[in-house]
Amino acid sequence: MIQKVSSAAALSEVVRPTTMLDAPRLSKLLAVDLRIASETFQHTGSFKFRAAYNLVSNVPQSEIITASSGNFGQAIAYACNLLGKRCTIVMPSTSARVKIDAVREYGGAVDLVDVREKSRQQRVSELALEKPSAFVASAYDDDYVIEGNASLGREICSVGIDFDVVVAPVGGGGLTSGIIMGIRQSGKNMKVIGAEPLLANDAARSLKAGRLIKNETEPLTIADGARTVGLGERNWRILRDGISGIVEVPEDRILEGVRALFSLANLKVEPTGALAVAAVMTNRELFRRRKVCCVVSGGNVDPDTYAAILKGDH
Amino acid sequence: MIQKVSSAAALSEVVRPTTMLDAPRLSKLLAVDLRIASETFQHTGSFKFRAAYNLVSNVPQSEIITASSGNFGQAIAYACNLLGKRCTIVMPSTSARVKIDAVREYGGAVDLVDVREKSRQQRVSELALEKPSAFVASAYDDDYVIEGNASLGREICSVGIDFDVVVAPVGGGGLTSGIIMGIRQSGKNMKVIGAEPLLANDAARSLKAGRLIKNETEPLTIADGARTVGLGERNWRILRDGISGIVEVPEDRILEGVRALFSLANLKVEPTGALAVAAVMTNRELFRRRKVCCVVSGGNVDPDTYAAILKGDH
Repeated sequence: MIQKVSSAAALSEVVRPTTMLDAPRLSKLLAVDLRIASETFQHTGSFKFRAAYNLVSNVPQSEIITASSGNFGQAIAYACNLLGKRCTIVMPSTSARVKIDAVREYGGAVDLVDVREKSRQQRVSELALEKPSAFVASAYDDDYVIEGNASLGREICSVGIDFDVVVAPVGGGGLTSGIIMGIRQSGKNMKVIGAEPLLANDAARSLKAGRLIKNETEPLTIADGARTVGLGERNWRILRDGISGIVEVPEDRILEGVRALFSLANLKVEPTGALAVAAVMTNRELFRRRKVCCVVSGGNVDPDTYAAILKGDH
Repeated sequence: MIQKVSSAAALSEVVRPTTMLDAPRLSKLLAVDLRIASETFQHTGSFKFRAAYNLVSNVPQSEIITASSGNFGQAIAYACNLLGKRCTIVMPSTSARVKIDAVREYGGAVDLVDVREKSRQQRVSELALEKPSAFVASAYDDDYVIEGNASLGREICSVGIDFDVVVAPVGGGGLTSGIIMGIRQSGKNMKVIGAEPLLANDAARSLKAGRLIKNETEPLTIADGARTVGLGERNWRILRDGISGIVEVPEDRILEGVRALFSLANLKVEPTGALAVAAVMTNRELFRRRKVCCVVSGGNVDPDTYAAILKGDH
C-alpha cells in the first residue's frame, strides 16, 4: 500500500508526527517527570525516515548507495520507493533478520558484508566504483541527514512542555546533532544528553578528550543501531559544543530499559530505542525530578531477540 | 506521579486521545485499507479507563466494588485514585500477574476468587452485603460504561476518514455497544463488526438466535478480556440491531494477530487487543479492500506470556 509521492513533497507533509507518550508508572520508577517521544510508529519504524526522505528528495541522483545496520537502509529504501529512485543497501551479515527483510520488501537491493573481513565502508567504496552515477549516502555525516533529524527536535519543542533535557541515543551522532539543530531553530534552550552504549563509547571519549576518537572496530553492543566506529565529522562539529553530556550505558541496563518500556509503557522498542530510558536508569542523580523527554529511536527488533530479552535470557 | 483531579473533570479533558496508526505492511498483508485505533497508551493501558472514569465520576457513592479480569479493575482503581474514592476489585485467581499488580499499584484492593468454585458475581454479591454503601459496578452492563466507551466511537468518527467498518473485540459487549452509540452520536454511518473468540462465542450465538444466550462457565480463551459468560442486557439491546456481524476468531488466529501487530506495526498488544486484526485474518472476504478501523483494546500482558506467543510456544 505504498503510495508514490507525485513530486518531491516537503518532509513535513510526509513524515509522521512523533508519538508523545506520558508513562506515569515509568516516570515514577525513574523519579523524573517523563515524556517519551516514540519514533517506533514513524514510517519504516524508526526516526531514520526523517533523514532518509530529506536526503533522497534533495540529491539530484536517481540511485543511492549506503551502508546501514538496517534502519537507515529501510528508510532509504522506502524514501526511494516513494520518490521513484533506486538504492543498494550494504548491511552487516549479523543484522537483525527483520531489518534485512524489510529493506527488500520496500524495494531496496541488499548487499550483505561480513564486517570481520571487510568494513561496510570498503564495500560501499567498491560499489561506488561500479556505479559512478550513484549518490553515496552517509547515515549520519551529511547535512541533509542532520536537517532531516532536526524536524524531530522542532517537534519536541512544539508540544508545549519546557523540557529540562532531551535524551537520545548516540551512534554516528546524526540524531543528537539533528535534535540540537532543531532545538536551536525553535529558539528553545533545552539541554540534549546522549545515551551511548558503554561498549561503543567513542562519543563519550571524544567529548572528554575534546577531539574525535574512533573505535578500532564496530563494537558488538546489543544496541545494533549504535554499532558505529565513530561520530561523523559534521556531527562532531555540532556535538562538541552542543551536547551537554553523554551517559555510557552498560548492556544489562539496555535490556532493563527494553523490559521497563514493555511493562510500564506498553511500548515495543528495539534495544537501541531503549538507550535513553536506560541512560536515566544508569545515572539517576543527573535526571532526578527533571522534566525529561526520552527519545525512543525505533522499534524494529527480531521476535526471537525480543522474547529472549523479555525472559531475561539475553 | 498520579495527579488528583480537583473536582470531577469531564471525561474528554482526562482521557488520552486514541492513538491512530497506519501500518502499511499490515494493511498489505490483510488486503484492506487499515487504520489501527490503539488504546494501549490510554490511561492504565486499555480503553476501559473511558468507562471507568465516566462511571466513578458520575455515581454519588465513594466506594466501588466490581468484578474484572483485570483491565476494568485497573481502570476503576486509577479513576478512584484520581477522584479520591475507594474500590475493591474481584479478580479470577488466573488473571495475568501484571493486571493484579497494577490494580494494587493504582491503590485498589484486590479480592482473588477461584472461578471454578465460585463465580465472580457471587463474590461481588457477598462483598456488596458486607459494604452496603458501596456502588457495585458492572464492567459492561451499565449506561455510564457504554457512554464512556462511546467517546472512542466519536473519536474514530473525528479523524477525517470515512471507514466502511470498525472492528472491535466483544466480551461483555461494553466496547462495541459504546462504539455504536458514539458513531450514532456523530451522525455517521460506519458499520461495526465484533471480533469474538470462537471459544467464547455467546454473542455470535445470541445474534444468530435473536435472543441473549450465555456461556455455561467463563471460557478459557487466551483473550482474557473476553472471558465473560455473556453480554450485558443493556449491551444486547444496542447490539442486536446495531452490530453488523460478529467474526468468531479461533485461538491460533488471536496469537497470529499478536505476532503480526508486533512484526508489522511495532505494537505490543494483549491477546484480547489482537482480536480485531485476527478477525480480519479469519474472514478475509468480508473485509477485502475496505477502509477498516481495527480497535486495539489494550496492551497489558505478562512478559512470559508475550514471549511465549512471539516464540510460537503458546
